[in-house]
Amino acid sequence: MNMAVEAEGKEYYRCKALAEDLLGKMTRLPVKLWLSALRVGKEDPRRIIHAVKVGVALTAVSCLYLLQPLFEGIGQGAMWAVMTVVVVLEFTAGATLCKGLNRGFGTLCAASLAFFIEVVSQKSGKEFHAIFIGISVFLVGFLTTYLRFVPYIKKNYEYGVVIFLLTFNLITISSFRVNDVLDLTKDRLSTIAIGCGVCLFMSLFILPNWSGEDLHRSTVHKLEVLARSIEACVHEFFQNQDRESPVREEKSSKDEIYKGYRAVLDSKSSDETLALFASWEPRHSRHCYSLPWEQYVKLGAIIRHFGYTAVALHGCLESEIQTPQSVRSLFRDPCVRVAGEVRKVLDELARSIRNRRHCSPDVLSDHLHEALHDLNSAIKSQPRLFLSSKSARRAAAERRPAAEKSTGLPSARSDITFALAPEWRGGKLAVADQPPVKEAKALRPTLSKIALTSLEFSEALPFAAFASLLVEMVARLELVIEEVEELSRAANFKEFSQDQIAIEMERAAAVKDFHSHVVCHSAAD
Amino acid sequence: MNMAVEAEGKEYYRCKALAEDLLGKMTRLPVKLWLSALRVGKEDPRRIIHAVKVGVALTAVSCLYLLQPLFEGIGQGAMWAVMTVVVVLEFTAGATLCKGLNRGFGTLCAASLAFFIEVVSQKSGKEFHAIFIGISVFLVGFLTTYLRFVPYIKKNYEYGVVIFLLTFNLITISSFRVNDVLDLTKDRLSTIAIGCGVCLFMSLFILPNWSGEDLHRSTVHKLEVLARSIEACVHEFFQNQDRESPVREEKSSKDEIYKGYRAVLDSKSSDETLALFASWEPRHSRHCYSLPWEQYVKLGAIIRHFGYTAVALHGCLESEIQTPQSVRSLFRDPCVRVAGEVRKVLDELARSIRNRRHCSPDVLSDHLHEALHDLNSAIKSQPRLFLSSKSARRAAAERRPAAEKSTGLPSARSDITFALAPEWRGGKLAVADQPPVKEAKALRPTLSKIALTSLEFSEALPFAAFASLLVEMVARLELVIEEVEELSRAANFKEFSQDQIAIEMERAAAVKDFHSHVVCHSAAD
Repeated sequence: MNMAVEAEGKEYYRCKALAEDLLGKMTRLPVKLWLSALRVGKEDPRRIIHAVKVGVALTAVSCLYLLQPLFEGIGQGAMWAVMTVVVVLEFTAGATLCKGLNRGFGTLCAASLAFFIEVVSQKSGKEFHAIFIGISVFLVGFLTTYLRFVPYIKKNYEYGVVIFLLTFNLITISSFRVNDVLDLTKDRLSTIAIGCGVCLFMSLFILPNWSGEDLHRSTVHKLEVLARSIEACVHEFFQNQDRESPVREEKSSKDEIYKGYRAVLDSKSSDETLALFASWEPRHSRHCYSLPWEQYVKLGAIIRHFGYTAVALHGCLESEIQTPQSVRSLFRDPCVRVAGEVRKVLDELARSIRNRRHCSPDVLSDHLHEALHDLNSAIKSQPRLFLSSKSARRAAAERRPAAEKSTGLPSARSDITFALAPEWRGGKLAVADQPPVKEAKALRPTLSKIALTSLEFSEALPFAAFASLLVEMVARLELVIEEVEELSRAANFKEFSQDQIAIEMERAAAVKDFHSHVVCHSAAD
Repeated sequence: MNMAVEAEGKEYYRCKALAEDLLGKMTRLPVKLWLSALRVGKEDPRRIIHAVKVGVALTAVSCLYLLQPLFEGIGQGAMWAVMTVVVVLEFTAGATLCKGLNRGFGTLCAASLAFFIEVVSQKSGKEFHAIFIGISVFLVGFLTTYLRFVPYIKKNYEYGVVIFLLTFNLITISSFRVNDVLDLTKDRLSTIAIGCGVCLFMSLFILPNWSGEDLHRSTVHKLEVLARSIEACVHEFFQNQDRESPVREEKSSKDEIYKGYRAVLDSKSSDETLALFASWEPRHSRHCYSLPWEQYVKLGAIIRHFGYTAVALHGCLESEIQTPQSVRSLFRDPCVRVAGEVRKVLDELARSIRNRRHCSPDVLSDHLHEALHDLNSAIKSQPRLFLSSKSARRAAAERRPAAEKSTGLPSARSDITFALAPEWRGGKLAVADQPPVKEAKALRPTLSKIALTSLEFSEALPFAAFASLLVEMVARLELVIEEVEELSRAANFKEFSQDQIAIEMERAAAVKDFHSHVVCHSAAD
């Protein structure tokens, strides 16, 4: 009895908490919405312009209905023009073209087919007519829906197929009770044409946004992000243990690096969408003959492939086995130099794409190879490096007590299974008792630390991985360069000229100065 | 004069070639379409069922218009029901629910707002009414379009916002010439409700496809693909030079491995879409209380994070500096063992998710740690490994002449810049002469080969990277295990029981036997 009351009480509090939670969310929602609406506009002011364009287009189209002389010409069908504008007018010109042409073509095809079926079935009786319509609706519905699963159709013409199905059904079914289907069809076609016309005019001629331009910019941005991240990553690797204290700050900078990568690595679908819309766009500037969007997609894939190495490099930062400071400092200069050269190459590639010119012929310069040589000779000059030598172990031992003190964990090897037991053996227990998840999270890093550091792997192993990944990265960099070259050929970029690069360099230096100025200031604050 | 004629002739041939090309494409298109339509059905027979469902739903809804008694009740508005079915009925229940509820809610909101505006403006004169309508159309168009850019709205309610805008415009503008707007609105709402009802019935009760199930399956699939790829990758690394001859076969198997990874790494957007739809789905089976789709998305991110290491591991296969066979064979057994244990863990995780039970408490078993120990002692037992020792160099020298013969390239270090020159210095030339792209492609691998092998990096470097990545992989594996544990807690999976696993293991063994049987056969063929 007592328990039942208790349970009821618990239930009441749970409900109350839920209700309060919901209420809190409801009150916070408008504020959140307002803030993110402001952010959205600040991030890309073109969005505001686009919203205004949609408003203007809608008002213009609704004049067809509101103004008497126009209404007399077009009639009730004006509604279809409004619908078309709502559905077709998209942010970029390519998207609007894709949807508009799909809608136009889909409607045209559907009208023809519906008309054909109407002619065939017209002479039969009413009942037969109804059955005939039912069967054709089923068949066309089945076929078009199935067709939408074909990847090629899905990618390029899905909207057109939907509109085809829609229009076909509307006309065919209407034909059962409306006598003058031809008129109805003509009306619909003309109003949809007006709607599409307004949309295309608004998106192609009034402050157009080109998907191709966005694709171009996003490619440049990806190269720049990678360049910055790789350099930051290498610096981080060699500065890691200079200053042990600001762990949190480092953590956040690491997160920054990782976020940069992730944006590049997860760019596949957004790139492909942009490329798809770009493929519908006409030549729109004197810069390029027609945007080689396929090349951009290919380049995107190669950049992602390059990015995977960069992520692995970044993984070395987070490795549980840390290379001793003594070893690191031996190789700092050559590694930083290689990374710097890689960054320079990536920056030059980004610059060349941004300015639509061929990249400098010495983009894969001797500097990079010299840097590789240096790294090579640095490694060869330390033949005892990869021994788990006494000196390395001594160096490690010097640092280990401090680490142990801070975590309070034994580093004896025999303790692995013991140390593991509470977590993994406790899998079952954990479920039964519903322990707080946070505790498990706090356990994790120390856990893998015991498991791995207790193994006493050669401490140079991560460094070897780091160096090897750097070398691998240079190899993959070549693929990127090659793809950029191909892109610049396909897109008819300008020839490379020395004067131009001097100007660009100056501009870049100015920007860099400005940035470093800002960074210095913010560091000093 | 002559040149002009020549140019004209060239133009003619170019046009002819283009026309022939187009004709060829036109004739091949239907065949291609037919083949891919067949493939689409074979890949997932649920698609055929879905197409049939759409056909049936459309026919059912069109009966509202075709059958006299029903038509008398509903009238012309029946068209809106047809439109709703075409637009709302989607492949999975979640997607249909998302669209249907969005459509319903959007229409309702729009109708209320339109009605409010109608009431406010009704008493004014005709001209004022028109202006008032124009302004409200502009404002609502602007605001809703802008709102669509807010990420939260875009993700969850974009369709609803579009429908809101559409319905609002239709009703508001109609109200200018139609007197009984209330009737019009009621008609529209009721027919849309009928359409949505038919869609929801078809997708929730007739052979439903659940997005949540798809998400669940795709998670399992990702783990399995990774497990297979990692094992294949390690085997490849150690078998690489056993048999030099079937390069093409190896190449294709490598592509296979890479494709497997890539599917995992590029899964972000498809996963998020599935999770979004899953979030609209009600509890639909006795298996789970309600699908913790957020956990699935998180697990997906962790699996991708794990996958990046796997890709880097795979990168070691393609590295230009190849570890000598003698070194590799020293470490084959421990490495293969670690990889085998990683595979076992991933398989167990996949199995536990598939069967909706907690994973075995000894999933991160002692075996894995023993394997790591072995690898560790193997590395430590070869302290001279990472020296660029004479023996290693001798071993390398034995293989190098063969490689040189096959590529015909010098390996002298001083040749780097020379070897690089034709490609990079030729960037300009290449554009002027339009050389075949294929040649450049053939040049590339040899090029980076020279650049890197000539540097005589310690040949154990890639192996060190390989080992380090393996160790790193084990560390990240823990994160995956933890996330799976969290998922199984969130989704209320069954408790782990020993009997069950025995049955599963037997089944898995049978499948494996079958597979190896097939592989043996195909290898023998």
